[in-house]
Amino acid sequence: MKDFMDKDFLLSNKTAQKLFHEAAAEEPIIDYHCHLIPKEIADNRRFSDIATTWLGEGHYGDHYKWRMLRANGVDENLITGNADPYDRFLAWAETVPALIGNPLYHWTHLELQRYFGITEPLNKASAPAIWKATNEKLQNDLDLSVYGIFKKFKVYAVGTTDDPADTLEWHEKIAAAGQSPAQVIPSFRPDRAVNIDKDGFAAYIASLAKTAGKSIDKLEDLLQVLGERVAFFDKLGARSSDHGLEFMPFALAKDGGAGSSWEKEVGETFSKALEGGKIDAQAAESYKTFILNFLAEQYSGKGWAMQIHLSAIRSINSRMLKALGPDTGFDAVHDHPVAAKLALFLDLLESRGKLPKIIMYSLNFKDFYPITSIIGSFQGGGIAGKMQLGSSWWYLDHIDGMEAQMKLLGNIGILSRFIGMLTDSRSFLSYPRHEYFRRILCNILGVWAENGEIPNDFELLGKLAKDISFGNAKRYFEM
Amino acid sequence: MKDFMDKDFLLSNKTAQKLFHEAAAEEPIIDYHCHLIPKEIADNRRFSDIATTWLGEGHYGDHYKWRMLRANGVDENLITGNADPYDRFLAWAETVPALIGNPLYHWTHLELQRYFGITEPLNKASAPAIWKATNEKLQNDLDLSVYGIFKKFKVYAVGTTDDPADTLEWHEKIAAAGQSPAQVIPSFRPDRAVNIDKDGFAAYIASLAKTAGKSIDKLEDLLQVLGERVAFFDKLGARSSDHGLEFMPFALAKDGGAGSSWEKEVGETFSKALEGGKIDAQAAESYKTFILNFLAEQYSGKGWAMQIHLSAIRSINSRMLKALGPDTGFDAVHDHPVAAKLALFLDLLESRGKLPKIIMYSLNFKDFYPITSIIGSFQGGGIAGKMQLGSSWWYLDHIDGMEAQMKLLGNIGILSRFIGMLTDSRSFLSYPRHEYFRRILCNILGVWAENGEIPNDFELLGKLAKDISFGNAKRYFEM
Amino acid sequence: MKDFMDKDFLLSNKTAQKLFHEAAAEEPIIDYHCHLIPKEIADNRRFSDIATTWLGEGHYGDHYKWRMLRANGVDENLITGNADPYDRFLAWAETVPALIGNPLYHWTHLELQRYFGITEPLNKASAPAIWKATNEKLQNDLDLSVYGIFKKFKVYAVGTTDDPADTLEWHEKIAAAGQSPAQVIPSFRPDRAVNIDKDGFAAYIASLAKTAGKSIDKLEDLLQVLGERVAFFDKLGARSSDHGLEFMPFALAKDGGAGSSWEKEVGETFSKALEGGKIDAQAAESYKTFILNFLAEQYSGKGWAMQIHLSAIRSINSRMLKALGPDTGFDAVHDHPVAAKLALFLDLLESRGKLPKIIMYSLNFKDFYPITSIIGSFQGGGIAGKMQLGSSWWYLDHIDGMEAQMKLLGNIGILSRFIGMLTDSRSFLSYPRHEYFRRILCNILGVWAENGEIPNDFELLGKLAKDISFGNAKRYFEM
Repeated sequence: MKDFMDKDFLLSNKTAQKLFHEAAAEEPIIDYHCHLIPKEIADNRRFSDIATTWLGEGHYGDHYKWRMLRANGVDENLITGNADPYDRFLAWAETVPALIGNPLYHWTHLELQRYFGITEPLNKASAPAIWKATNEKLQNDLDLSVYGIFKKFKVYAVGTTDDPADTLEWHEKIAAAGQSPAQVIPSFRPDRAVNIDKDGFAAYIASLAKTAGKSIDKLEDLLQVLGERVAFFDKLGARSSDHGLEFMPFALAKDGGAGSSWEKEVGETFSKALEGGKIDAQAAESYKTFILNFLAEQYSGKGWAMQIHLSAIRSINSRMLKALGPDTGFDAVHDHPVAAKLALFLDLLESRGKLPKIIMYSLNFKDFYPITSIIGSFQGGGIAGKMQLGSSWWYLDHIDGMEAQMKLLGNIGILSRFIGMLTDSRSFLSYPRHEYFRRILCNILGVWAENGEIPNDFELLGKLAKDISFGNAKRYFEM
Repeated sequence: MKDFMDKDFLLSNKTAQKLFHEAAAEEPIIDYHCHLIPKEIADNRRFSDIATTWLGEGHYGDHYKWRMLRANGVDENLITGNADPYDRFLAWAETVPALIGNPLYHWTHLELQRYFGITEPLNKASAPAIWKATNEKLQNDLDLSVYGIFKKFKVYAVGTTDDPADTLEWHEKIAAAGQSPAQVIPSFRPDRAVNIDKDGFAAYIASLAKTAGKSIDKLEDLLQVLGERVAFFDKLGARSSDHGLEFMPFALAKDGGAGSSWEKEVGETFSKALEGGKIDAQAAESYKTFILNFLAEQYSGKGWAMQIHLSAIRSINSRMLKALGPDTGFDAVHDHPVAAKLALFLDLLESRGKLPKIIMYSLNFKDFYPITSIIGSFQGGGIAGKMQLGSSWWYLDHIDGMEAQMKLLGNIGILSRFIGMLTDSRSFLSYPRHEYFRRILCNILGVWAENGEIPNDFELLGKLAKDISFGNAKRYFEM
Repeated sequence: MKDFMDKDFLLSNKTAQKLFHEAAAEEPIIDYHCHLIPKEIADNRRFSDIATTWLGEGHYGDHYKWRMLRANGVDENLITGNADPYDRFLAWAETVPALIGNPLYHWTHLELQRYFGITEPLNKASAPAIWKATNEKLQNDLDLSVYGIFKKFKVYAVGTTDDPADTLEWHEKIAAAGQSPAQVIPSFRPDRAVNIDKDGFAAYIASLAKTAGKSIDKLEDLLQVLGERVAFFDKLGARSSDHGLEFMPFALAKDGGAGSSWEKEVGETFSKALEGGKIDAQAAESYKTFILNFLAEQYSGKGWAMQIHLSAIRSINSRMLKALGPDTGFDAVHDHPVAAKLALFLDLLESRGKLPKIIMYSLNFKDFYPITSIIGSFQGGGIAGKMQLGSSWWYLDHIDGMEAQMKLLGNIGILSRFIGMLTDSRSFLSYPRHEYFRRILCNILGVWAENGEIPNDFELLGKLAKDISFGNAKRYFEM
C-alpha cells in the first residue's frame, strides 16, 4: 500500500520507479503548445494569491476548475463573479474532495507539493492554513516568479499561441531582454483567418491588414499577408502553427478540381465575406480547405510542424456565452467522422510534395484509431516520426486517456518517436503535468518490462523515456 | 487466489473490502428505473418455479437470457415456446457454463446465492438439485414474496415505468394498502406520444384521451392533457420521466425559428398524423423536438429528473418480431452521432431557464465522451450534479462497462455526485445487481487508495461509497 | 519479475500458465483466413534469407513492417527498393528496438524463438549473428520448408483467399499430390465482382467469363456464373467466402422494394457498367446489396460462412499508390456508421430463411458494440455461435485489441463459441500469432479464475481454451 501521492506516485513497480527517477524526471521541459500570456512572461510576473492564480480573474481563468465548481453546485459568483478571493478559494477547497477520480484532484495536489511543499490534502479543514502558506510563498519566494518557475522546472522552451495579427512585440521584448531561462517562441494560430463563416471575419481581416501594413482586398492579398506573417513568426523562432477545427474540412471546387477554378471560386467567396455576405456551408468548407492547404505549404517550406486540434464543439451554452464570453467552460467533445476528409487533405499535400510535419489531436478518443492509421500512411521521406498523434488533449488528459493514447500509438504507430507532453495551459502552475505524464509513461514501460513483454534493459528503456520526455520534441521542432 | 464468488467477490484489496462491507453494503436501494409490473407489487406476488421466474412466461420474460440461449444453439421452443418449465430450466442450466465472461454468469450465481443460499455453480450436473431447492424456497419462503424481497434487500423506493395513458390504479392501491416496505412510484414514459412516425400513433392518442377524459383533436389539446398527466403522476409521487429515443432529435421550424411558426407547423403535423397521414422525417423530428421540449419544461416545473435513453435500434429481426412481438431479444446498439443535436436541445431549454435535471444514458460507449462533456456544459444553478451521465445501461451493464462509465465520469465529470445504479429490470430477482455495482465502485476506490492516488481515508471514501450507493439518489430525486 | 518473452510470456498467473501449457498450446491450428500463395504451398517452397522472408520482394511483402520502417525514417529504397537484402535486414534490425509497444516487436521475437531458436532481442548489435543463423537455418533445415512449417505448427487447415476468376489449379495440385500435412482450401473472395464502381470492372467480368467458359452479357449471366463458381470452390473444399467492404452497403430499388423491380434496376446498372458507363453512388450501392444478398443465399445453401471485413480505407496516399501499387502500407481505419445498414442487410436474408453463418470483422473498434449486438439479434436456428464477431483484425490484432475483442464478446455475446484466431497473413512465419492469441485468451481466463470471477475448474476452462483455439472453428466450418 502506497502513501497518498508520495515520491513513487503512479509508479507501480521498481523498474517504473527507476525509469522515472533516474531517466525521465530530470529531463528539461519543452512545453510546445500552451496559452501563457507573453506580456506576463516579459514582466516576469508574480502572483498575489492562490485564488487568483488557480481560479483566474473575472472571465479569464481556469475553466477546467470552473466546470467542476458548477457541477458541484457552487454559485457562479464564487466562480467568475467578484466574490472575495478567500471565499473563492474556500469554495474550491470544499470542492476538491468531491473531485476524487478527476485529474484536477491530482494536479491540485501536485501543484501544492511541487510549488509550495504542501503534502496534505486540500479540503475545508486544511484550507485556512494552505491559504496562508501559499500566499506567503507566492508573495515572497523568488522561485515563484515566472522566471523562477521556468528555472525550477527546467523549462527549455515555451510555445505560446499567437494570432497572425499579433505584432509579437512581447516576444521581441523577451528575446531582447535575454532574462528568460526558457526560450519563448510564438506559434502561428490563424483560426480567425480560416473561420470565414464566423461573425467578425471581415473586421478580423482588417485588423490583420493593419498589423501587416497592407490592404487586403482580395484573396491573393490575404495569401501574400499570411505568407509574410509566417515568415515574421519564423524569424522570431516559431516552429509550429496551431489550428482549432470543429471538423476536418475538405472541399475543392464545385467541379471537384483543385486547380485555378478552385482558387477563383475561393476568391469569390473571400470577396463576398469581406462585403459581409453570408457564406454557405459548401463555400466555407472549400475556403477553409484552400487556406489550410496554402498554409500547410508555407509551414512545409519553413520546416514547421502543423498542429491540428479537432472535434471540439464550442460555447454550447448560449446563456453563459452571453454572460461570460467564450473559453469559460462551455465547450465539449464533438463526434464528427474524421477519416475520409483527413485522408484527402493529407493526400492533396503529399501528392505535390508539400506535406509538412503534422501533429493531429482530437478531443474524441473514437478518432484515435482512424487518425493514427491515416497519418501513418503519410510517414516517410526520411523524417522519423514526421506525422504525430498528438498527446491526449483537454478532456482526455487524465491517466486513463494518456495511457490509452500511448498504448494505441504503440500498438499501431511508433511510440518511441512520440514528441510527448504539452500543457495547453494558461497557468504557470501547470508544469507538474509534464511530471504526471512522465510517470504514466515510465509506468507503462516498467509494467511491460517486469511482465517480460519487453527487455528489462535500463539503457534501452531509459533512453526511450528520455526521448519521449524531451529529446524527441527537441529534434522534431529543431530547437 | 480467491474462491469463486466469495464474500470478497470483485474486491481486490483490503481497502475495497472494507469500503464495501462496512460502508456500501448496508445502504438501502433506490431502484429509480425499472420495469416491474405494478399489479404484481400490489398483489405481493409469489413465484411458482425458477424457470418461470428466470425465463418468463410466453413472450414476456428476460430477453437477456433468451439471446444467450439462442446464441448457444438452443431451440426456440425451450426459450419462448410452451416447453415444460423443467426442460426450459435445464436448457438454461446447460447454457450457463457457456456464459463465462458474460454478466449473466455472475447475476445467475448472485441470485442463487442471495435469494436461495446456493453457492455451487449451475450446470447440467447441479441442475436437478438446484431446481428442487429453488422451487421449494420460492413456494414456501415468505422472504421470496415481493414484499419479502423488498425488505430483505432494503429497497427504499422503486420507480416503475408507466405510460401517460395508464390510470396508475395499481400505484394508488399500493399506496392505499400501505403494505409495501418500499415506496413504489410511477415514472412518466410518454414514448408513444412522441413517436408520431410509428404505427398506431392516432390510436394511442385516442387511448390517452380516454384516460384523460378529454378529447384530443389538436396540438394544444395534447399539450393540455400531457401537462395534466404530468401533474397526476406527480401527485402519485413521480420524480422522473423516461424517454427512449433512437437518436436525439433536434429540428425547429422549417425557417429555423423556435417561436409561434414552429408551434403552427408542429400543430399541422400532429393533425395530419391524427388523420392517418404519412409524416416525413423532417416533420417527425420537428414534432419530437417540440414535444420533448414542452415536456422538459413541465418536468422542470415539478423538480423531476428527465431520463433520456439513446441509441437503441429496435426489433431488427422482422421474422422474430412477427413471431414474438417487441422486447423479445432483437434490439441492439445504434451508432448515430449525438453531440450537435444534444447540445442544441439542452441549450434551447437552458436559454429560457427551463432546463430540468437530466440523466443521459446511451447504449453506445462511443457517446460517453461527447455526452458527459456536453451535459457538463449545462451544470449549474446551484444544484450539485444536476446533469447526470446515466449508469452503464443494458449492453454496457457488465463489469468492464460499469468500471469504464465510472472512471470516465470521474475523469471528465464529477463522480462523487453520481446517483448510481438502477436495475432496468422486469424481475424481482435483480436486486443483487446493486450489490454488483457497489462492489465494482468500492474496488475502484480501493485500488486508487492503495495505489496512493487518493487518500486512504475511510471517512472520506466510505461517505463517497455510501453517497453513490444511495444518498445521492435520495437527494437528487428529493425522495 | 519475468524474463523477456520466456515460456510464460503474457501468462500472469499459475492458472493462466496451466491453461496455456496443458490445454491450449498443443491444439492444432485452423488458419481459416490468410493470404498465402497456393503455388508456394504446392511447391513446398523454401526461403533464401530472412530479409526476403520478412520484408518481401519488390512490391510484395509485409506492409506492417514497411509502415514501421517509414515511420522510423528509413529510406524507401531499403523498404521496397532493390537494396541489398542484408542492408534491408539491417534497417529492420535497427528499427525493431524502436517498436517497443507494437505487436511487430513481439511477432519478430516470437518468430526468432519458434522458427530459429534465437532468444536474444534483435537490434543493431545482434543483427550480424542473427542474419547468419537464420539464413543458415532457412537454407538447410527441412522444418523450414512450407510443409515442415505446417507440421511443426500442427496446421490442420489453411484457408487461402481466392478470386472467383481463379482456376484453383494450385489447390487441385496440392490435393492431388497429397503431400501437404495441412488441408489447403480456397475461400471465395468476389470483391472485384462486387465493386462495380471501381476501375477495371468490365475487364474483370470478362476474365471471370473466360475462367467460367461462358459469356457474361447481362445480370442473369453473372448470377449464373457466380453460382457455378461457388459450387466449384465448394467442390474443392471451400468453407467460407470473404468480402472486403469499405462500408456495409444497403440500398434496394429506388422505390424501396426488394422484388423484381430491384432486379431490373440492378440489371440495368450492370449492363451500363459493362459498357463502361459511370455508375452513381446509389446505383452502385444497390448493385452491391443485390449481389451480396445473392451470394449470401448461395453460401447459406452450401453451409459456408460468409466473412465480411468492414471499415478499411484503401490506398490513401496516391503518390505511393502510383509508385508501388495497392497493399503496400497505405491503407487505414475508416469510420463509417455501421448499425442501420448491417441490421437491414441481415434482416433481408433472415426474413427469407437465407441467412448463412456470418463472421463480421471491423477495423474500427467503435463498431464492435453495434456489430456484436446486431449479429446477436440474428443468432438462432439451433446453430451455436452461428453469427460470429471476427477476431481482432489488422490494426487491432495486438494484445490490447485482442483482449478487448474477447472481453466485449464475453460481455455482450458468447465467448465460449468463439471460433478464434486467424493470421490474415502472407507469410509462412506467422503461425506464432496463434500462440500469441492463445496466451492472451488463457491469461484472461486465468485472471478471472484466480480473482474468483469464474470457477477455477481446469476441466471447464481447459475445454473452453481448447474450443476457442481449435474445436469451435473445426465444428463451425465443418472441417
